[in-house]
Amino acid sequence: MKHNFGAGPCILPQEVFEQAAAAVLDFNGLSILEVSHRHKDFVAVMDEALDLVKKALHVPAGYSVAYLQGGATLGFTIAALTMQRDHRKAGYINTGTWASGAIKEAKKVGIEVDVFASSEDQQFSYIPKNYTIPTDIDYVHFTSNNTIYGTQFKQIPQTTYPLVCDMSSDIFSQEINVADYDLIYAGAQKNLGPAGATLYIVKDEVLGKSSANFLPTYLDLKQHVEKESMLNTPPVFSVYVAMLNLRHLLAHGGVAAQAQKNEAKAKLLYDAIDQLDAFKGNVATEDRSLMNVTFALTDESRGAEFDALWKGAGIVGLPGHRSVGGYRASLYNALPLESVQVLVDVMKEFNRKG
Amino acid sequence: MKHNFGAGPCILPQEVFEQAAAAVLDFNGLSILEVSHRHKDFVAVMDEALDLVKKALHVPAGYSVAYLQGGATLGFTIAALTMQRDHRKAGYINTGTWASGAIKEAKKVGIEVDVFASSEDQQFSYIPKNYTIPTDIDYVHFTSNNTIYGTQFKQIPQTTYPLVCDMSSDIFSQEINVADYDLIYAGAQKNLGPAGATLYIVKDEVLGKSSANFLPTYLDLKQHVEKESMLNTPPVFSVYVAMLNLRHLLAHGGVAAQAQKNEAKAKLLYDAIDQLDAFKGNVATEDRSLMNVTFALTDESRGAEFDALWKGAGIVGLPGHRSVGGYRASLYNALPLESVQVLVDVMKEFNRKG
Repeated sequence: MKHNFGAGPCILPQEVFEQAAAAVLDFNGLSILEVSHRHKDFVAVMDEALDLVKKALHVPAGYSVAYLQGGATLGFTIAALTMQRDHRKAGYINTGTWASGAIKEAKKVGIEVDVFASSEDQQFSYIPKNYTIPTDIDYVHFTSNNTIYGTQFKQIPQTTYPLVCDMSSDIFSQEINVADYDLIYAGAQKNLGPAGATLYIVKDEVLGKSSANFLPTYLDLKQHVEKESMLNTPPVFSVYVAMLNLRHLLAHGGVAAQAQKNEAKAKLLYDAIDQLDAFKGNVATEDRSLMNVTFALTDESRGAEFDALWKGAGIVGLPGHRSVGGYRASLYNALPLESVQVLVDVMKEFNRKG
Repeated sequence: MKHNFGAGPCILPQEVFEQAAAAVLDFNGLSILEVSHRHKDFVAVMDEALDLVKKALHVPAGYSVAYLQGGATLGFTIAALTMQRDHRKAGYINTGTWASGAIKEAKKVGIEVDVFASSEDQQFSYIPKNYTIPTDIDYVHFTSNNTIYGTQFKQIPQTTYPLVCDMSSDIFSQEINVADYDLIYAGAQKNLGPAGATLYIVKDEVLGKSSANFLPTYLDLKQHVEKESMLNTPPVFSVYVAMLNLRHLLAHGGVAAQAQKNEAKAKLLYDAIDQLDAFKGNVATEDRSLMNVTFALTDESRGAEFDALWKGAGIVGLPGHRSVGGYRASLYNALPLESVQVLVDVMKEFNRKG
C-alpha cells in the first residue's frame, strides 16, 4: 500500500482505476482505446463528462463546458486570446510559477499586462490582499491555488471586470460560484482525471468577441464549444476517466462533501506542522493551501533521517518542487484521510527522536 | 470477436491493450494514471517512447522527436509557425479535408498559401501528379494519406524547398526516408497509440528560425524539443501506450515487416473490389491507399442487405466518412489479415446473392 502525496498527475479513487482498466479491455465489446470518438457510445461519454461538470459545480445557465488538450500552458494562451478586447490590456495577480507563466503567455499574444499585485517580494509565500485593480482593462486573471508554493486564495478578487481563473490545482476540491467568473480553465491531472485533458468553463456571452489578430482554430474556444468538444479527435481515454471520476465524486456527496473531507485532511496535517517543533510551515497561515501543504524541517541536517522514515511508511511524492525544495504533501480529493494520518504519525515519530 | 475497421481512434494490438490495462492498475506500485511525469519511472517511459520512434523509422542524426497534444489540427498551426520564414509564403497540395484544414490554418497565421496542386476538381479521388512547385516559398506541405477519400501518395513531392508532411494516418505503416523531410507530424490515434498525443519529427536546423510575429510557448516546437517533451505535463497514458505499441512493432519485425503485412491486407481487399461485380472502388487505382480502402456498392439499393451481412459477421467501423458516404475499411497496422478475410468472405457472399 502506497500513500501518494504527489502534486500531479496524482492519485484518483481506486474504484476509478479499476473501472478504467476494465474499459481498456472491454468497452461495449471494444477497448476504450480503439473506439471511434464519433461512435454513439463515446459521444454519450463526452456528453456525460460535460454534464457532470455542470452538476458538480452547479454551473448556471449561460455557461458552457469544454474539454481541450494542451494543459494550462496552452490555456494561458487560449484564455488571453478568448478574453482580449479593444483595450488589449489585462490585470494579472502574480502568485508564483504558474501565474508568471500566464503573464508571459498573455504578453506573447500582444496583451499589455498590468501585474497589479504580486507576492514575488517574499518568494510567493502569501496571497496579495491590498491592491488596486487597474481600469480600462479587458479582464482580471488569477491562479486560485499555487501548487508549488502551497498558497491558495480564500477570497476571490473583487472586480467588475471579467474574472478569469486558472483553477488547475483546486477545481472540484471546494464549492465555487461559477457565476463569479467569465472563464475558468484547469488541467485535468489533479482532481479531475488523468493528464491529457484540459477543462474550460466559459460564460457564453464572452465567446466570439476576441479582438485577437491571430486565432488558430484549435485556440478558438468558441469553436470547441460549438462542436461540443469534438472539433477534432478528443483525448478519448482522459475524458472517459474524468467522467468516471466525476461519477464517483457525485455518488459520494459531490463537491460539498469532498470539501469537508479536504478540510479535515488539511487540518490534521497543518496541526501537526504547528504543534511539532521539528517542522515549520512555509507560507502565511491565513493563505495556506488545502491542496498542497508545504513545510520544512526546523533542522535541515536531519533530512536524510526524515526521508528514510516516510519512505519506509510507503509514502511517495513528498519532496517539494525542485524550484523550492523542502516538502510538499498534496492532499487531492482522492487521497484518503488515512494516508494523512500515516504521514502525521511519521512526523510525530520523527519529532520524538529529535 | 469484433473486427474493427474504424478509421481512428482505431485498433491496437491486443497485447498492448492488456499491458495498458495492467499498468492502469499497477505501474511499479502505483497506477500509471497517478504517477508524476517527473518521476524517474515515467521519464524512462518518455525516453523510450522517443527512442523507439527513432529506431522504428531509422531517424537520422540531426533530427529530433517530440510528443505534444492537440492532434494534427493544432499541428497545422505549429507546422506553419515552425516553418514560416521571410517569404511568409508556402506551397500546399490539397488532397482533401485534412489538407484543406492545413491550408486554412496556415492562412490564419499569416502565411500566403499557394495551392499549386489539388484534386478538388474530382472530389479528391486522385493524387495530383503534374504540377509546378512555385518559387520563393518557405516550404511545401502535403498530406501523405487521405483517410476520408482513401488516396495515398506513392511518391513524395520532389522539391528543393523544405518538405512538411501531415503523416497522421500512415506513419509506421511503411518505410519512409526521414531525411526527405524537414518536418513530419502525426496524430497518434492510428498506428501509434491512443488519441491524446501528437508526434513531431523535425530537422534540428529548422528550429528557432521562425519569422512568426506570434509564438506562444506551447506552439514553439523548439521548446518542446529542448524540454524533451516535458515542457508541461505530457499526456502520460497516451505516451505510455504509444511506447508499448512501438515495442510491439519492433518486436515483430519493425516497419518493414509491417509494411508487407499491410500490402497483403490491402491486396486481398482491393482484389475483391475489382473482381466482384457488386462493388466498385472510389478512387484512381494507382493512388489507392493501403490504409483506408474506400468503396461503394454497384447497386446502392442493396445497402441494407450488405450492412446486415457485415454487421452479422462482427465487423464494426465500416461506414464511410459522413462527408462522402459509401464504405471505408481501414486496415491499420494492428488489424489482422484474418479480419480482412472475414470482410472479403462477406463481400463474396453478398456478390453471389446479387
